[in-house]
Amino acid sequence: MKTPVQLEKALQYSETRKESFLTELKNYLKIPSISTLSEHQKDIRRATEFLGQHLQNIGMENVRAYSTKGNPVVYADWLHARGKPTLIIYGHYDVQPADPVEDWKSPPFDPQIREGNIYARGATDNKGQHLTHLKALESYLKGAGEIPVNVKVFIEGEEETGGRSTKKFIAENRKLLQADLAILSDGTKFSKNQPTIYIGMRGLVYLELRIRTAHVDAHSGIFGGRIDNAADVLAYLLTNLKDRNGKILIPDFYGKVKDLSKEEWRSYTSLPTGGGELERILGVKQIHTEKGYPEHISGTARPTLDTHGLLSGFTGEGSKTIIPYEATAKVSMRLVPDQNPSEIVTAFKNYIGKLTPPTADVEVVEHASAKPYVMKNKFGISEMKQAQKEVWGKEPLLLRVGGVIGAVADFHEYLGIDTIMADLGDPDDNLHAPNEKFSLENFEKGIAMAIRFLNLIGR
Amino acid sequence: MKTPVQLEKALQYSETRKESFLTELKNYLKIPSISTLSEHQKDIRRATEFLGQHLQNIGMENVRAYSTKGNPVVYADWLHARGKPTLIIYGHYDVQPADPVEDWKSPPFDPQIREGNIYARGATDNKGQHLTHLKALESYLKGAGEIPVNVKVFIEGEEETGGRSTKKFIAENRKLLQADLAILSDGTKFSKNQPTIYIGMRGLVYLELRIRTAHVDAHSGIFGGRIDNAADVLAYLLTNLKDRNGKILIPDFYGKVKDLSKEEWRSYTSLPTGGGELERILGVKQIHTEKGYPEHISGTARPTLDTHGLLSGFTGEGSKTIIPYEATAKVSMRLVPDQNPSEIVTAFKNYIGKLTPPTADVEVVEHASAKPYVMKNKFGISEMKQAQKEVWGKEPLLLRVGGVIGAVADFHEYLGIDTIMADLGDPDDNLHAPNEKFSLENFEKGIAMAIRFLNLIGR
Repeated sequence: MKTPVQLEKALQYSETRKESFLTELKNYLKIPSISTLSEHQKDIRRATEFLGQHLQNIGMENVRAYSTKGNPVVYADWLHARGKPTLIIYGHYDVQPADPVEDWKSPPFDPQIREGNIYARGATDNKGQHLTHLKALESYLKGAGEIPVNVKVFIEGEEETGGRSTKKFIAENRKLLQADLAILSDGTKFSKNQPTIYIGMRGLVYLELRIRTAHVDAHSGIFGGRIDNAADVLAYLLTNLKDRNGKILIPDFYGKVKDLSKEEWRSYTSLPTGGGELERILGVKQIHTEKGYPEHISGTARPTLDTHGLLSGFTGEGSKTIIPYEATAKVSMRLVPDQNPSEIVTAFKNYIGKLTPPTADVEVVEHASAKPYVMKNKFGISEMKQAQKEVWGKEPLLLRVGGVIGAVADFHEYLGIDTIMADLGDPDDNLHAPNEKFSLENFEKGIAMAIRFLNLIGR
Repeated sequence: MKTPVQLEKALQYSETRKESFLTELKNYLKIPSISTLSEHQKDIRRATEFLGQHLQNIGMENVRAYSTKGNPVVYADWLHARGKPTLIIYGHYDVQPADPVEDWKSPPFDPQIREGNIYARGATDNKGQHLTHLKALESYLKGAGEIPVNVKVFIEGEEETGGRSTKKFIAENRKLLQADLAILSDGTKFSKNQPTIYIGMRGLVYLELRIRTAHVDAHSGIFGGRIDNAADVLAYLLTNLKDRNGKILIPDFYGKVKDLSKEEWRSYTSLPTGGGELERILGVKQIHTEKGYPEHISGTARPTLDTHGLLSGFTGEGSKTIIPYEATAKVSMRLVPDQNPSEIVTAFKNYIGKLTPPTADVEVVEHASAKPYVMKNKFGISEMKQAQKEVWGKEPLLLRVGGVIGAVADFHEYLGIDTIMADLGDPDDNLHAPNEKFSLENFEKGIAMAIRFLNLIGR
């Protein structure tokens, strides 16, 4: 069996290249490839060029930036491991805006190292994390001359904007992307030094309520007591959507919600909770879960409903005595298997229709939706567990993630494959916030994890 | 008895001066004396100069613009009716901003006459309305050489800003303003051609709720199901302040609310309701009163609670998946006799304190308050009824007004006098809106009403 030799060579290669790997990460992080701001289109192109060049350099084949209606998708492959499985390695080169820039201790696109961390926008989300997988490929190709499995690299540029172009590209390129499994690192471990594999993901329905009770604001002195108030109707609707125990009140909402398996429940309930983490990071006074469900289940494996924003009437300084004629709320629901987004939208609309008083018109606008996902077969899981255990010396946790990564749902829907989410960040990495960081330890361990995983899956 | 001769002369004077009266109204309306916008300070001064000059011209004495910390108060008197009562004639020379200017059919400060109405900002609120009283004074002084009663003119410049300077001036000048009764015209009749006297006014408490559940917005995918949501807490508090029947749920809120007298109840319930007026003017689908109270009682003689504005989280276009950490609502309560604003604020704060969940901090900020008022003795009412009946050929309605005019409460509190509110506008006069107007008929009838009232009260 030649695999151990390959592994040995790949690990050795990566061990001796730490410094150049870090330099390349720095160069990648210097590109402000912000996808939400159109003035950064030039930087989006620079990021795809950097990636293309890099994939060429490390020995990948068929390297190409595919145009889409939105930002390009960077693709490369290496398909010479006959009889072995094919992996998609996923990442995204786009980053969040850096605002508020004044809160950064060092400039967001001038990566700096402090106390074992590299600080820059995109460090953990997602350049640093997907670069670990590319460095693993390089270590095999340059150190051992081959990769133990077939690999398709797929790095997109619209993860932060929910752009539909990537979805469309996946749907239209099933043949190109055909694979047995996808893998990504794009989020945070359960806690520092606690390796974690995410095997499921909540879905999403994002809606907006637009309420009208008149066609003009009215003086509350003259009309208070005669007409209804759009802001009051809004509050009434919101409190009827979810009670204070976190129970969602939409009829049939929970109809298709699957109970967690005993194994998952056990895994979740064995987790440490509290310890002041949320209090410290977010400044909340106490956690607030769905009643009857511990924090980590309520936060990842149970559906939720949240209001994201409210707007109505006069919101300036001081006082103005009007009865507002319109009010809007943005609301989303996180869904779990086997909830169906379009069925949930219908149930939501029907319920709002029944709640709406005769004094108001309510419009429900749909903004976005994503299907929930949980791994069906467990292909790759034992290998990833093994790889993480070898690197961290600890059994990884198997959990679900609360948020949505569009590509995971799309791979499942259009390619019929699962995605192993082997997140490498720490909970205090400040993804989407100022002073984003990625620890050099996570970068190095991530590369080692990816090398070992490729070895194990290719055996 | 010489009064009828005086009256005859005054009426005759006014009859022959229609054209010059209208020219003077136009000149007054050309001054954009907007009190909320500091760039109009020059115009505020021009308005006080116009008034001072005008009061001199018509023969009033002790004419003076008194400085305050805010906008000046214009004062004049004529105190030669020995043994007769003393009247304060109240008005305000400041006007609302003209926005949105593009919705005006003719420029807001270039008064134009169309179909028997004069269109300009301030036409009905309040220049046109108080000028009727000054024209009545002129008619007596110039036409008959004297006024049948003692008169103090008091025209202020902060009615539209709730400025505290006028209040302070009244409080500090009790001697100067000492009188038996105040009179004003500053609002709308119950309906066109239906003379109306308002004998009471609701009070006001204006508060702001500021809710915090964390010190930063949190990602709803990662934290949804783990932490509380400021927007949800806000909706919960609002729906606990008032139910869908318009009943205010604050404990003890109704404790001091007086029932209407049988006479008032009868007067109110004899009023025509509906007829599509609110539907037409405001575009509401149907009226929405406190359950059990007809529209005009619910809208003027019962306390109300309204939300004026809501703001929380993400309110831009599209979607953003955050759990907002703060939310604010502006809320006011209209009070009726004998509710006490400061007791209501205390009850509100106590109740909010009890409702606030352990996950949130709620601050209650006080913006404004005014005491409710209802006429205690009926001095002047029968004279005003008679004057209106003579002018409109119809028995006037005796009602309360839903809104607040600061000076009425202040006259009551600091001078110990009632105010007769003899409003002259029509319900479709667009006060505070584009295309504000005042009908020439109301202007003329208002002058006749004021002349007749002065005669009757001076008998």
